[in-house]
Amino acid sequence: MGAMNVNGRPHRTIWPATDGWSVEIIDQTRLPHEVQILRITTPEEMANAIQTMQVRGAPLIGVAACYGLALAVRRDSSEAAIENATASLCATRPTAVNLRARLGQLRDQLLRLPDSKRVEFAYHYCAQVADEEVEIGRRIGEHGLALIVKAFAARNGQGRVNVLTHCNAGWLATVDWGTALAPVYLAHQIGIPVHVWVAETRPRNQGYLTAWELAQQEVPHTIVVDNVGGHLMQRREVDLCIVGTDRTTGAGDVCNKIGTYLKALAARDNRVPFYVALPSSSVDWSIGSGVEQIPIERRSESEVHEVAGRTSEGHPLSIRVTPRESSALNYAFDVTPARLVSGLITERGICDASAEGLLTLYPERRA
Amino acid sequence: MGAMNVNGRPHRTIWPATDGWSVEIIDQTRLPHEVQILRITTPEEMANAIQTMQVRGAPLIGVAACYGLALAVRRDSSEAAIENATASLCATRPTAVNLRARLGQLRDQLLRLPDSKRVEFAYHYCAQVADEEVEIGRRIGEHGLALIVKAFAARNGQGRVNVLTHCNAGWLATVDWGTALAPVYLAHQIGIPVHVWVAETRPRNQGYLTAWELAQQEVPHTIVVDNVGGHLMQRREVDLCIVGTDRTTGAGDVCNKIGTYLKALAARDNRVPFYVALPSSSVDWSIGSGVEQIPIERRSESEVHEVAGRTSEGHPLSIRVTPRESSALNYAFDVTPARLVSGLITERGICDASAEGLLTLYPERRA
Repeated sequence: MGAMNVNGRPHRTIWPATDGWSVEIIDQTRLPHEVQILRITTPEEMANAIQTMQVRGAPLIGVAACYGLALAVRRDSSEAAIENATASLCATRPTAVNLRARLGQLRDQLLRLPDSKRVEFAYHYCAQVADEEVEIGRRIGEHGLALIVKAFAARNGQGRVNVLTHCNAGWLATVDWGTALAPVYLAHQIGIPVHVWVAETRPRNQGYLTAWELAQQEVPHTIVVDNVGGHLMQRREVDLCIVGTDRTTGAGDVCNKIGTYLKALAARDNRVPFYVALPSSSVDWSIGSGVEQIPIERRSESEVHEVAGRTSEGHPLSIRVTPRESSALNYAFDVTPARLVSGLITERGICDASAEGLLTLYPERRA
Repeated sequence: MGAMNVNGRPHRTIWPATDGWSVEIIDQTRLPHEVQILRITTPEEMANAIQTMQVRGAPLIGVAACYGLALAVRRDSSEAAIENATASLCATRPTAVNLRARLGQLRDQLLRLPDSKRVEFAYHYCAQVADEEVEIGRRIGEHGLALIVKAFAARNGQGRVNVLTHCNAGWLATVDWGTALAPVYLAHQIGIPVHVWVAETRPRNQGYLTAWELAQQEVPHTIVVDNVGGHLMQRREVDLCIVGTDRTTGAGDVCNKIGTYLKALAARDNRVPFYVALPSSSVDWSIGSGVEQIPIERRSESEVHEVAGRTSEGHPLSIRVTPRESSALNYAFDVTPARLVSGLITERGICDASAEGLLTLYPERRA
C-alpha cells in the first residue's frame, strides 16, 4: 500500500506506534537535516506538533488532529474532554480547512456513541482517514499523470517534462503519495522523464522537504530560490506548474503557501499551465472569494529572521540572518484567484477552477 | 556633500585611502552582520571584490572598476597594461552595463594621453565619476520624491506611504543616496511618513543590506520574504513599488535582480504603480528586447545552498540550508518587460518606459 520510501524502505508520515495507542510522526522541522521520529502521547503534544509544524500540510494535519482527538478520548472519554480537545486542536492553524472538517466529523460521531465505545471508534476512524488520504493521493496522481503525459507528447517525447512546484505538497504533506507531487511520482514510476523545479519557499523553506523527498524517490530535481520562477517561465524552461492548496473556495480560488500567487501570475504571463492538486476535503464550499474571506495566518517573525541548516561539520544549527535592528512580517499564505488557475486536480478528476467546474465533479454539493 | 550615515557619521561606499593611492570600500559580503572596511591595492583585488560582490550595485561597480583601472595604471601605465586591466575588470560581471560604459570611457581617454599623464588623470577621473554618481542619485531622489508626495496626497495625508522595494538599490549600491531609495531618503528628510517593505532578495539577501542602511538612516521599514510582495499588494498595503536596474534597454525593458519581474506582475494585477530608478548610464541604447538580448548572469549554486548570518552568540557564520543530495540553479537577474513598468525615474526626470519616453529625456540619443 505504501508508496514512498525513506532510505529505500516504505514509510508513511504518521502511524500508530507498536504500543497500540501512542502515535509516531516524522519531525518535519528537523528535515532535511535529520530524520527524527517523534512519539506523541497526548492531545497537547499533538496540538503543539501541528502548531510548530512538526507535522504540516493540509491533508496530514487533518489526520494528525484526529489522532490528537483519539489520544484525548483515551485519557478521558467524556463529552467535555472531547469538546475541549476539539477546540484546542482546531485552534492550532487557521487556514487549512481539512483540519476543521476531519476533526468535526470525528467529534460528531464520537458524541453520538456511548462513552465506552469512543476510544476504539476514535482509533479506528483515524486509521480509516489515514488510508483514505493515501487513496486520495493515489487518485490525484492518476488524474494528474494525464497532464504530464500530455506535456511529454507536446515535446514529441524529447527531453524531459519540467514541472515547477512551490512549497511541499508531496508525500510529507499527506500520509503517502502527496497531492501536487503524486502525478510526478507516478510519471517517474512509469518511466516518463520528469524533472522538478523546487522553489525553496521562504520563510520556512518547505521546498527543501520537497527536494528531500524527491531525492528519496530518486526523482530528478533542482532547487531554485522563490524569485526564479518567473525567469524560468520566460525562458520556456517550465512545461507545467503543479502546486497544492490549504483551502480552496467553492468558486475555485486557491489559498496556498505564500508566493503561490506570484508563480500563478508568471504562468499566465508566459502561457504555462498552472494546476492545483487537492483532496476535495480542502474545499471550503461555504465561501466564494478567497481574497476577501479566507483568514490568512500570520506566523512569528522569527521564521523570517532565523534559518535552519547544518554547519560545515554537519551539526544542525539555526542562525539569525536579518539585521538586528529590523523587524519582519510573516504572512504564511496568499490567495491565487481562480482566473489564474488552469484547473483543479482532485481525487475525482480534473475540473475548471470555478463553481461550475467543482460542482460537475461534486454534484452532491449543489444547493 | 555626503548624505548617508554609518553609526551617525557621513560615509560613502568607496573612497581613496589617506595614503593617496589605494582605495577603500565597505565589504558588503560582511553586511549586515559586520561593518568591515577593505583596502584594495591592485586591479586584481578590485576585480575580485566586484566578482565576489564585496562591492555591488550597477552604479557602484562602475566606479569601483574605474578605481581598479587607476590602480592598474599606477602599477604600469603602458597601453598593454591598460587593455589587460580593462578586459579583466569588464569580465567580472556580465549584466550591468555601467561597468563596461564607465570603464570604456576611462580606457579611451587614457589611451589618448601620454604615459606620464595617465596616473594622475585616472585618479582624477575616478573622483569625478564618484561625485557624478552622488549627484545623479540626488537628482533621481528629487524626481522620485514627487511620486511619494503624490502617494501621500492620495492618502489625504493619512497614515504612511508604503513603498515596496526589491534587492538593494540604495546608498550601498551607489556611492551615496542610492537610486530606488534616494526618493525615500529625501521624503524621510522632509518629514513625509514613509515606510519601506524590504524584500529579502534570495539568494544573497541583499534586502538585508537595504534594511541595514534604512536602519542607519532611521527610516521605518519591515523585512518580508520575497514571496510576500503579491499578498501585500492584494491587501492594498503597498502604495508604490520602486526598484533599481542593472541594465535598461533602449525600449524600456528592465533587467534587475531576480524576482523583480514577479513583483512587477503583482503590481500590474493590483494596479499598484511600479517605478524603476536608474542613472542613464545603466541604459543599453544598443538593444531593444531585454528578454531576448540581455545576458543573464548565472552564479554559483553555493549562493543557494549557503546562507550567511550570526549564531546566537553573535558570531558570523554560513550554514548549508539545502539537502545534501540536491543541486541548485542560480540565475542572478530577470527581465521585466517595459509593458509592466509605470515609469523610469532618471537623473533628468521621469519618463515612460519606452523608446519614445527615454528619447524625450535623452534627445541626444536619437539616431
